[in-house]
Amino acid sequence: MINVALFGFGRIGQMHGENLFKHPKFNLKYVYDKDIKLAKKAISKFKTTVIKNYKTALKDKEIHVIFIASSTATHINFIREAAAYKKTIFCEKPLDLDLNKIISCKKYIKKFSPRIQIGFNRRYDPGHYFLKNAIDKKKIGILQKIIITCRDPAPPPYSYLKTAGGIFKDMIIHDFDLIRFYLKNDPISEVFATTSDLSEHAKLFKSVKDFEIATVVLKSKKGVLCTINNARHCTYGHDQRVEVFGTKGMLISNNKRDTEIELSNSNGSNLKTKLLNFFIERYKEAYYLQLHDLAGLVTKKKKPRADFNDGHQALILAIAAAKSLKLKKIVKIN
Amino acid sequence: MINVALFGFGRIGQMHGENLFKHPKFNLKYVYDKDIKLAKKAISKFKTTVIKNYKTALKDKEIHVIFIASSTATHINFIREAAAYKKTIFCEKPLDLDLNKIISCKKYIKKFSPRIQIGFNRRYDPGHYFLKNAIDKKKIGILQKIIITCRDPAPPPYSYLKTAGGIFKDMIIHDFDLIRFYLKNDPISEVFATTSDLSEHAKLFKSVKDFEIATVVLKSKKGVLCTINNARHCTYGHDQRVEVFGTKGMLISNNKRDTEIELSNSNGSNLKTKLLNFFIERYKEAYYLQLHDLAGLVTKKKKPRADFNDGHQALILAIAAAKSLKLKKIVKIN
Amino acid sequence: MINVALFGFGRIGQMHGENLFKHPKFNLKYVYDKDIKLAKKAISKFKTTVIKNYKTALKDKEIHVIFIASSTATHINFIREAAAYKKTIFCEKPLDLDLNKIISCKKYIKKFSPRIQIGFNRRYDPGHYFLKNAIDKKKIGILQKIIITCRDPAPPPYSYLKTAGGIFKDMIIHDFDLIRFYLKNDPISEVFATTSDLSEHAKLFKSVKDFEIATVVLKSKKGVLCTINNARHCTYGHDQRVEVFGTKGMLISNNKRDTEIELSNSNGSNLKTKLLNFFIERYKEAYYLQLHDLAGLVTKKKKPRADFNDGHQALILAIAAAKSLKLKKIVKIN
Amino acid sequence: MINVALFGFGRIGQMHGENLFKHPKFNLKYVYDKDIKLAKKAISKFKTTVIKNYKTALKDKEIHVIFIASSTATHINFIREAAAYKKTIFCEKPLDLDLNKIISCKKYIKKFSPRIQIGFNRRYDPGHYFLKNAIDKKKIGILQKIIITCRDPAPPPYSYLKTAGGIFKDMIIHDFDLIRFYLKNDPISEVFATTSDLSEHAKLFKSVKDFEIATVVLKSKKGVLCTINNARHCTYGHDQRVEVFGTKGMLISNNKRDTEIELSNSNGSNLKTKLLNFFIERYKEAYYLQLHDLAGLVTKKKKPRADFNDGHQALILAIAAAKSLKLKKIVKIN
Repeated sequence: MINVALFGFGRIGQMHGENLFKHPKFNLKYVYDKDIKLAKKAISKFKTTVIKNYKTALKDKEIHVIFIASSTATHINFIREAAAYKKTIFCEKPLDLDLNKIISCKKYIKKFSPRIQIGFNRRYDPGHYFLKNAIDKKKIGILQKIIITCRDPAPPPYSYLKTAGGIFKDMIIHDFDLIRFYLKNDPISEVFATTSDLSEHAKLFKSVKDFEIATVVLKSKKGVLCTINNARHCTYGHDQRVEVFGTKGMLISNNKRDTEIELSNSNGSNLKTKLLNFFIERYKEAYYLQLHDLAGLVTKKKKPRADFNDGHQALILAIAAAKSLKLKKIVKIN
Repeated sequence: MINVALFGFGRIGQMHGENLFKHPKFNLKYVYDKDIKLAKKAISKFKTTVIKNYKTALKDKEIHVIFIASSTATHINFIREAAAYKKTIFCEKPLDLDLNKIISCKKYIKKFSPRIQIGFNRRYDPGHYFLKNAIDKKKIGILQKIIITCRDPAPPPYSYLKTAGGIFKDMIIHDFDLIRFYLKNDPISEVFATTSDLSEHAKLFKSVKDFEIATVVLKSKKGVLCTINNARHCTYGHDQRVEVFGTKGMLISNNKRDTEIELSNSNGSNLKTKLLNFFIERYKEAYYLQLHDLAGLVTKKKKPRADFNDGHQALILAIAAAKSLKLKKIVKIN
Repeated sequence: MINVALFGFGRIGQMHGENLFKHPKFNLKYVYDKDIKLAKKAISKFKTTVIKNYKTALKDKEIHVIFIASSTATHINFIREAAAYKKTIFCEKPLDLDLNKIISCKKYIKKFSPRIQIGFNRRYDPGHYFLKNAIDKKKIGILQKIIITCRDPAPPPYSYLKTAGGIFKDMIIHDFDLIRFYLKNDPISEVFATTSDLSEHAKLFKSVKDFEIATVVLKSKKGVLCTINNARHCTYGHDQRVEVFGTKGMLISNNKRDTEIELSNSNGSNLKTKLLNFFIERYKEAYYLQLHDLAGLVTKKKKPRADFNDGHQALILAIAAAKSLKLKKIVKIN
Repeated sequence: MINVALFGFGRIGQMHGENLFKHPKFNLKYVYDKDIKLAKKAISKFKTTVIKNYKTALKDKEIHVIFIASSTATHINFIREAAAYKKTIFCEKPLDLDLNKIISCKKYIKKFSPRIQIGFNRRYDPGHYFLKNAIDKKKIGILQKIIITCRDPAPPPYSYLKTAGGIFKDMIIHDFDLIRFYLKNDPISEVFATTSDLSEHAKLFKSVKDFEIATVVLKSKKGVLCTINNARHCTYGHDQRVEVFGTKGMLISNNKRDTEIELSNSNGSNLKTKLLNFFIERYKEAYYLQLHDLAGLVTKKKKPRADFNDGHQALILAIAAAKSLKLKKIVKIN
């Protein structure tokens, strides 16, 4: 059994807690959250120990994995410390909002040869991963186009938005990462972004200097064109589609629903239910599947699909997108 | 150009008139209907001549085709006369409601070696025909199951129902024929039928000793099981599906719509428009395509997909189904 | 925590074991299988105790639930004993192949007022259950038609078939039950069945006097027509569709897949992956969800969706179908 | 009957000829093509008169409509002359490749108050038009996003490409127009374009300084973001999808096929046939439907959905896209 200390017990921390609890290979030994009251929920739920000081986990030689699901601003420090303690690390995205902090961390931890997995869960979605495999096997010939649609069901609250880092670093970072996953050794060379706010939510987004909808276009060195179509509201659920197009064909990883119901009546035909509501439901399977790789990472038998560098590179693209938006032109990536 | 005399100018006659008018190989020379006022609509619409006596058409040596779209009761006599005049004949389904009349007609016309095409339009639907070809080419391996769904959008009026001959002879006859088309040389050996009326229309159907919904199960000599699911009302349009299942796979000929629209909103996702409303819209293409074979039949270059015998055999199955319903058991066909 | 003793550790027993192990409300205290070697697999897998004599579980006052997943022939005796010990009982379908044994058991256990849930898992499938709710809420108006398709991916081996009781009692019993679930207080009054074997598997089925494909038609007292289309092979996975049709519309509970991938290339467009392979994958969620009701049954707070009587009634329909097949006519149910 | 003279009898001219011939309101009196041999095909096909000098048609007072389907370079001159003769004009897209020629033509013809319809056929596609109506009726709330996919089945030959004016003026001009149709009174204010060639066709496109795939992003004055995803090859047919997204929902106008066939076998499930092959098949209905408006235009009773100004504006966007591609930044439209 692999002993895990979970840092952060908010919404996403609780979900990871449940997965770790259910997973046959992991033992959720500790839960830490600076909100001790919140952390205590874990005791009865997952039969685990709540620690007041996260260092308890770092110092415990039986702990194999530090699982970081706390707020973004705390990620880098936890990584630095956990790396120094030679722990295997899982860290939620984004690594940080500040590129310099990431770069200096990278330098610092290098000497520890750390084993780090980043929580880019979409790489573990069976549908999206099917596309990855098909591209690698040339099932659609030469890859030419990647189109991602990502629409969240409803805007986050003001409290979240004001520290989230903006639509590129907070939300579209998943799409940047997925595109990098598909492109493999062909790096992004050009980024263009444009945004808009024209609904009743416009005020909210303007108040935090953020945006409601965005379109990002990327071009890889080889010439693959990538389009990202995002929105922060969606009446029919969490719209998550990926399309890859090549010289021999096209593949879509389409939306998921609770049931495969279809209703036909005088209003029309074959109405399906709304899409799964949000990322926790939509990527439930992916969140669980990524734990298999984490188990392999502990024993050094397996590389995770996303590592520290992937977290770093995705942020570079997010920053380039924000710059392109400001300059109204293409931003080149070296 | 092939000269045609169209007998019958009701709803279906008018549709045939338009197709003949548009078709490059046909010249709609005459239109006959016992309701002369109705027939006169054709003059301006299709630049044709309306005749008061149908014999005018039979006697006209320039007429190649007698196209029978009049009421069912008139079919057999028109066929008899047209055959004697050596005309090529197109006749709408059903041939007649009385099997004896068909058998005696068959004997009578034999000496004229008549060229007769029966209006089993579904054989010409591109989707349904795709299945026929696929079955013949063994694309689904050994055929084991045929399932047909046929739901009309709304019950016909009392006036129609009282002379239509009942659900088996009037409506399901199309399904019997389609099954025979798919089975080719493997004849139906057993028929079972059951019906029901349990909606607000029950009274209407009971008043004409007819039925609102029906299920018919047929078994071929080789052992193919066929299920027909019919209803005389359908809130979402004209539901027309055919499924064929075999040892190597399954093929569906699915419903058709006006547009390929899909609406997603807070009520659900990917709502399509209602199905095409009724047979005239649904089988528009099929009605037109069957004229190609009719043109070929005139020149003896082509056999139509459905002939007099097909009309005869379909009625035998309809009568067997009615008998099975009464006896509550399987009726064998020799 | 609810303490459970699991009887039977074959394929389905192991699946139930895993669900019970993962479920927060259950503690899998004992596993019993007459094949002790097989049962011992459970020790490391589910940290449970393997018992050599099933009576150990019955006599243990801490055991709340006897969970019967052993071979069909053992069901009735286990139920009798567990009822006498006042245990809550879960029993896999079918109850037994012999109606008399069921009836005498029913009489015997009556005095113990037993709490029994039958493993008709399809009642817990979210899609199929959506239909149940929609019917009850009259979303499709008056229910008129139920059509179930059930095709297993591949024929079971000879060893299974020879004791399984035939296609009606073993396989279609699920469909009979689902129809009864949808019909609620409207009992089946007529049963008709026909079967066929015409593939390369025909020999296998004939050797055990069983059948490869079957069509069953049922009619309820009110007049709902129900069609069941089954096959014991299917090249594209486990085909599981339910369609309900009424005066106001139609609902389909469609097939499920691993991913929502669609491939378009020169062979055609929007090819999806094969269906989930078999019942364990297809009804994974249903198998887990039925445990919630079992937990409620222990505390008498909840009735399960399927009880002993449902197991009894489904077998009556299976026997009637077999009789209809022999007599080639409708069999009436009182 | 409306008398028409058709100029140009190449592929698209022949298609228009057939539609005019079949349409009840039009009489195809003359066909003109500088390739007289080609034009003569029309005589037997459409029972029409072939003229050697197009002026014959202009001078004939019985001619109501000059229908221009000749090569792009000839459009403007034909429009000038036909306008001077007070004819109703139908002209294929694009008006011209040279903006100045369009502007000077616009000035010249103004005095004749010409009635001109431009062949932006997609405005007449029932699916795409359904979206237009739904947007206008606020069925998806505030429009925020338009996404168009347009992939041609195969690259045109070198001979066509070298004079076609490039992907923006020749192909994407349809998409620019459709977006303008949906946006109505909200003009495009920003254009961004990027292209790529990375397949075996790259050489061909480079030889004519054109591109194989392109992505264009437009922003309207109100803030609607529009994405166009185009490719000049597509193994599965003519991929034509339009998606519109708003605050209350999303609508897709999806692809069309010959039949609604779905094949399931060991390779996967629900494989549909390839998409309709190219624009002539895909927009068959649209090409015919636009003639209704042309008939109305002759009698001044109806405005066509696309007029001279729409032809002009679409070209402005095409030129802006080409400029953006060169400058690698947003080009503003006044």
